[in-house]
Amino acid sequence: MMIKKPSLIINQEIAKENIRKMISLTKQWDMDFRPHFKTHQSAKIANWFKAEGVNKCAVSSLSMASYFAANGWTDISVAIPVNLLEIEDVRRLSKLVKLYICVDHQDSCEFLSKNIQESLNVFIEIDTTYARSGINYLHTKKTDHLLKILEAAPSLQFTGFLSHSGQTYQAKTGKEIAPIFEETRQQMMILKEKYLENHPQMIISMGDTPASTFANDFRGIDEWRPGNFIFYDLMQYTQGICKQEEIALIVRCPVIGIYLERKELVIYGGGIHLSKESTYYQGSEIFGWLKNMEESIGVGQEEYLNGFPVISLSQEHGIIAASEEFLSQIKIGDLVDIIPVHSCMTADLYAAYLSENGQLIKKFRSNS
Amino acid sequence: MMIKKPSLIINQEIAKENIRKMISLTKQWDMDFRPHFKTHQSAKIANWFKAEGVNKCAVSSLSMASYFAANGWTDISVAIPVNLLEIEDVRRLSKLVKLYICVDHQDSCEFLSKNIQESLNVFIEIDTTYARSGINYLHTKKTDHLLKILEAAPSLQFTGFLSHSGQTYQAKTGKEIAPIFEETRQQMMILKEKYLENHPQMIISMGDTPASTFANDFRGIDEWRPGNFIFYDLMQYTQGICKQEEIALIVRCPVIGIYLERKELVIYGGGIHLSKESTYYQGSEIFGWLKNMEESIGVGQEEYLNGFPVISLSQEHGIIAASEEFLSQIKIGDLVDIIPVHSCMTADLYAAYLSENGQLIKKFRSNS
Repeated sequence: MMIKKPSLIINQEIAKENIRKMISLTKQWDMDFRPHFKTHQSAKIANWFKAEGVNKCAVSSLSMASYFAANGWTDISVAIPVNLLEIEDVRRLSKLVKLYICVDHQDSCEFLSKNIQESLNVFIEIDTTYARSGINYLHTKKTDHLLKILEAAPSLQFTGFLSHSGQTYQAKTGKEIAPIFEETRQQMMILKEKYLENHPQMIISMGDTPASTFANDFRGIDEWRPGNFIFYDLMQYTQGICKQEEIALIVRCPVIGIYLERKELVIYGGGIHLSKESTYYQGSEIFGWLKNMEESIGVGQEEYLNGFPVISLSQEHGIIAASEEFLSQIKIGDLVDIIPVHSCMTADLYAAYLSENGQLIKKFRSNS
Repeated sequence: MMIKKPSLIINQEIAKENIRKMISLTKQWDMDFRPHFKTHQSAKIANWFKAEGVNKCAVSSLSMASYFAANGWTDISVAIPVNLLEIEDVRRLSKLVKLYICVDHQDSCEFLSKNIQESLNVFIEIDTTYARSGINYLHTKKTDHLLKILEAAPSLQFTGFLSHSGQTYQAKTGKEIAPIFEETRQQMMILKEKYLENHPQMIISMGDTPASTFANDFRGIDEWRPGNFIFYDLMQYTQGICKQEEIALIVRCPVIGIYLERKELVIYGGGIHLSKESTYYQGSEIFGWLKNMEESIGVGQEEYLNGFPVISLSQEHGIIAASEEFLSQIKIGDLVDIIPVHSCMTADLYAAYLSENGQLIKKFRSNS
């Protein structure tokens, strides 16, 4: 297939190897593997997990849960506080598959206890100081109150405690990640100790890609729920979470402008192709990285990807700062490969992936 | 239609009034109006322009040009340097409609002169120091060289000079916009004076929403090409470019978390619903604004929207800092209205708008 506009390209071999490595980690620590499918959002890619024996997944919306349920997945966890306005979807899905939802508020628990007659698995979401959603791990009075409501509702089964240590994404270097994650694991272990006796079936569900690389201790975690690792991206690379050769996703973009006087090139490839997610490189905000194995303005004292930074994005244009030598070699109409800052956000923008051998790999599409 | 997940809501009356006001500006200064449809990307909304007598448009990709051509538009300008890889689409479209493309590089001109047999209208794009695409207005030798290639190609018609004064978006306050824009207009006028005699049919195409509000002089501009004004957004509001009551687009989101101890609420509404475009408010990066007419933590010394800032976005969660009073009134499962930072980027994420009276308004979808 000839590429003529910005295209989301997946390297299948790398992605499959990333899956195998993560499975190996979960086996090593005797954790159930529940990969988060919000990153790839594709039934076909989900089958690569199935081929390795994975039979459960996490998703970030009920719409995405419906998509994977329709594609043969029967054990699905919706890892975001339940949206009460979608109660009909919760009902419908809970009849079709083993469905898990999350709660962190008494009103949600009470609403579910009144409105769910079917059997529904419920995680209490715990905030291990990431401060997005969940009950703060110290607020056990609140947790007790939610548990009481769940226990009184015959249709609601308390599954355990779920948390996302998103603060590992905020670490500036990989070295910071292990202690941050260990603290959150300890917090979850306190809860497990406190509640396990009365709830012997309960599990602890955690998981994020940075900790998968850097944490040294996963003991007591029953289920591991990372997502990004299948592709990785620039953000993960700059934190040292993955190696250059583990990045499985790029956006291939046509060159539409070359500006020698500014030492810049412009690609047809903007915020609607890469997302406006940014990260920082040597003090400057960047929006992606042009992969170029031969040359780089990025390599200084610190180790860095070969290539050049995307320094600005508008709706459909991207501006890349490059070297004179690179600009003298490249031509209008050439294709360049851009590593996205955050692969989850980038993949979400597309209807399909293209594999390196030209195969179209369809995916779920948000906001359809 | 019951809203149960993040939805893109358009206020038709406001949008139509925004269109009428822009038409009135272009008539006042005797400019042709070529609205940029990259903002709304919808054939149905395009008809609101048609109803007011508008019969030409600008778009930001050949795919979008194809969409509007298929929906009855016959005079379309693709306001981005031509992507040579889509030469077949240029050919096909130039047979269907009056098509305008942009060039700023001799290689593109030479490629077109060899590969276009049909009649094609060509703008030379000028960079009036925004430094995205275009030939710097001072580099008239380059411009002359491109003109020479165009003149030698019987199939290529030189239309005139096109520029986008994108630096008006970088102004911190509205007052800075008028002088910035006036400088770019003067630069284009120098070119017009220089080339008009030999090219009496040439036109000057400019246009952006900020200048539409603040510029005092549009003399010599033949065609005006703004886009964002149909919706406006938080960025435009904070620069004083529009009034609160002129904002025609919001994302309506379910509340899924309330955290009194942090004075925050969490919406089902993340980067994939609002885009990760951000702006700054009182020194902090924000990603949207919860509209609330009754109350605000945003009103201090400076005039500001009533409501509360979206302080963080992950893939599907948004965190909003709010007042205790507001949090005590709101409930899990309520819907809140979020003003997006940049409406073009937000609208691009959806397959359709919903009007306030529940009508579905379909649109073009990028990356399909």
